[in-house]
Amino acid sequence: MNQSNQEKDHFEKNSLSVPSTHKKRIVVIGGGFAGINFVDKINSNEYQIVLFDRYNYHTFQPLLYQVATAGLEPDSVCGPLRKICKTKKDLYFRMLKVQKVDTKERRVYTLLGSIKYDYLVVATGAKTNYFGNKNIEKNAFPLKQVVHALELRSQLFQLFEKAELRRGTDEVDKLLTFVVVGGGPTGVEMAGALAEMKKHVLPHDYPEIDFNRMKVYLLEGLERLLPAMTESSSESSKKYLETLGVDVRLETFMKDYDGKKAVLDNGEEIYADTVIWAAGVMPNIIEGIEADQFKGRFHVDEFNRVYTTEGQSTYDNIYALGDVAYQVTEQFPDGLPGVAPVAIQQGEYLGKTFNRLAKNKKIRPFNYLDKGTMATVGRNKAVADLPLDIKLSGFMGWITWMFVHLMYLIGFRNKMVVFVNWMWSYLNYDRGIRLIIRPAQKNWEETDELIEKSLQ
Amino acid sequence: MNQSNQEKDHFEKNSLSVPSTHKKRIVVIGGGFAGINFVDKINSNEYQIVLFDRYNYHTFQPLLYQVATAGLEPDSVCGPLRKICKTKKDLYFRMLKVQKVDTKERRVYTLLGSIKYDYLVVATGAKTNYFGNKNIEKNAFPLKQVVHALELRSQLFQLFEKAELRRGTDEVDKLLTFVVVGGGPTGVEMAGALAEMKKHVLPHDYPEIDFNRMKVYLLEGLERLLPAMTESSSESSKKYLETLGVDVRLETFMKDYDGKKAVLDNGEEIYADTVIWAAGVMPNIIEGIEADQFKGRFHVDEFNRVYTTEGQSTYDNIYALGDVAYQVTEQFPDGLPGVAPVAIQQGEYLGKTFNRLAKNKKIRPFNYLDKGTMATVGRNKAVADLPLDIKLSGFMGWITWMFVHLMYLIGFRNKMVVFVNWMWSYLNYDRGIRLIIRPAQKNWEETDELIEKSLQ
Repeated sequence: MNQSNQEKDHFEKNSLSVPSTHKKRIVVIGGGFAGINFVDKINSNEYQIVLFDRYNYHTFQPLLYQVATAGLEPDSVCGPLRKICKTKKDLYFRMLKVQKVDTKERRVYTLLGSIKYDYLVVATGAKTNYFGNKNIEKNAFPLKQVVHALELRSQLFQLFEKAELRRGTDEVDKLLTFVVVGGGPTGVEMAGALAEMKKHVLPHDYPEIDFNRMKVYLLEGLERLLPAMTESSSESSKKYLETLGVDVRLETFMKDYDGKKAVLDNGEEIYADTVIWAAGVMPNIIEGIEADQFKGRFHVDEFNRVYTTEGQSTYDNIYALGDVAYQVTEQFPDGLPGVAPVAIQQGEYLGKTFNRLAKNKKIRPFNYLDKGTMATVGRNKAVADLPLDIKLSGFMGWITWMFVHLMYLIGFRNKMVVFVNWMWSYLNYDRGIRLIIRPAQKNWEETDELIEKSLQ
Repeated sequence: MNQSNQEKDHFEKNSLSVPSTHKKRIVVIGGGFAGINFVDKINSNEYQIVLFDRYNYHTFQPLLYQVATAGLEPDSVCGPLRKICKTKKDLYFRMLKVQKVDTKERRVYTLLGSIKYDYLVVATGAKTNYFGNKNIEKNAFPLKQVVHALELRSQLFQLFEKAELRRGTDEVDKLLTFVVVGGGPTGVEMAGALAEMKKHVLPHDYPEIDFNRMKVYLLEGLERLLPAMTESSSESSKKYLETLGVDVRLETFMKDYDGKKAVLDNGEEIYADTVIWAAGVMPNIIEGIEADQFKGRFHVDEFNRVYTTEGQSTYDNIYALGDVAYQVTEQFPDGLPGVAPVAIQQGEYLGKTFNRLAKNKKIRPFNYLDKGTMATVGRNKAVADLPLDIKLSGFMGWITWMFVHLMYLIGFRNKMVVFVNWMWSYLNYDRGIRLIIRPAQKNWEETDELIEKSLQ
């Protein structure tokens, strides 16, 4: 046992400890797209890996809106992280939130102790950004995690039950008004799914409710939907949404929402019991890493190393991936977008780069291969901007969207169950999973605290 | 409009009101096996039906233990009641708990108003019976509802995470000790599922935990497991469980459990963080129905009419079905057992009986057709007592058990998803759904209250 490992052992007689080896230890924070793809590619014969996540599962965030709208089970858009980890030998999973990092000591801290790293990979992703508006934070529904999707599902079906019991009163309009804020993929897909439910599912379920009174608004601050896509895709998605009856408002902001009334920047007021906030994200920052940042994201060089000072020096052992990283490339001078494909490719890239380093091979800078962007609005209605200037829409876009999402889902079981659900919904114009198992509470902070407590 | 309907209208200008018709109105309380099979068979051209349930879904209780042990999604053992209802015209679902009944006024009361009935069908089922022990009620996990199964699933996987973080300490034994109380089908299946996880799933997921320290106890007060089955099935199930490493204790009661330590009637103490209580049920009684009762169940005659006085007079318009009914037959002089097939058949019978009454046809008394009893212990290990003295065990019993349970699941989507999961688990020795979405809280009473509140 060498000096460095004796030192490790001395410090790590705590519940986080992992076996001492001669290998360098890589600590990965976050089991999202970047983290699990890094873990998938890294050669654990060369490195020891310790993966931290506060949940015991990976979430396939692009499909959360389908969980919220009763199209998929929460369980089929999640993959247990221990299952992902068990394919590798010297890989350890710790279901713990990392509290802070000490970059001098090279050590990460949790509530249950600390652990030393040789390399640190920060892949903590992003969370909902309310831009400081406490009212909106308190009253609107975000859609970044499984608990959010479940709370929103409960909220929707509680409201429909309530609307039926209140039929004939004015209260019904407020119960059946849904304001979706943010015209990115999440907002577009959520608004589309609500409008489809209004058309195909709800009138059969609640024959006593007059669903002409149900209104879905989609607000976007910029002058077009899906600003990251081509203009023709933006236009198609708007057209699809309007065909489904969604009231799309461009260049419109929501200023405030008290739980009852949404106030727009043009002064208009919309009475709505449900606002879904998909208007922005911000990185999950870990305390203790001094670095150059852009909008809270760690500025990284072309090898995904975190800059200590912009454009000058980087940490030699701290890397950032995915939504928490800000990386400028020739093609993307304003930084790579915060989307799943970037996180996936950066994770794979960094894993392979470490493997090359271990073999003393030359390493290459990260190169993002843009395979295209897509969004689905509803049944047979999707838009896709693919490479070589290929644009798909309608049925072809929709099939492509389904195929790509199935492909990237973690695990064969999930793929099968999602496929069955999609075929079922398509053939039967149905959404099978409309259960109110627990009533909506919006207590996600409490949930996180309880998970932490449960381990103590 | 006749006199009786005018009267109805006068009283029912409230949120429960349903359209007035010339038809007699049947109010059904409870969407369990009895309720939904009654609803399935009743001819709604002859009667108007109003179905009450405090949840918006039907629960397939025999598979809850698989939800708790990460084998099935909660969503695939539930069927939305509105979907079940939408196949009929003059059938109304109300997601409300019935507070009380006024049998003179012929009216059921809820928090949001009341509604008149011509006929009342009580199918409220059963809940967990702690036999008055408040300690056990507070600290043990029941397994009668979906929320129970989800809390237990969270509990199990929290404990495993915790055990890994505590490895090397004595605390691990307590974390990994599971006491299942009650040797009926639920207890046998739960103990078997835990033992199978110990064998096939957990050592891969948690390579750092020594699973030799995991203990599963099954306690049964009588002298054999599965007392409702044949002695050979009892013996086979005990043998299977012991092969899997379960410590089966017959003629053993748990006297007390404080959340840490289970005290048995022989004085033995078992330190365990988890006790699963499957030792007894009691009927969900509705206030206001004066009737002859047996252990809290409504004593019913051969037409499922509730007795006001034993053996003498019955209500002419109040019926009880399933677990809340006590019906004596020639074959079952101690009363029909509280199992799903009885509830299903009574529901179907009463629906058809009402249809015959409407056509002035002669009605026949209920005749229970015992199609057999079965329980599964694990992979290729099940017991089945079938008619004609056929007894199946091992692989054949297990295949039969799967086939029968798939057949009775509500909805084709559920059947498909459950089938995919079972095939997956069988081929891969895996349980795919081990997510801690919300930490275990045992707050089911609160959950029910919140559902009620959400509608007000």
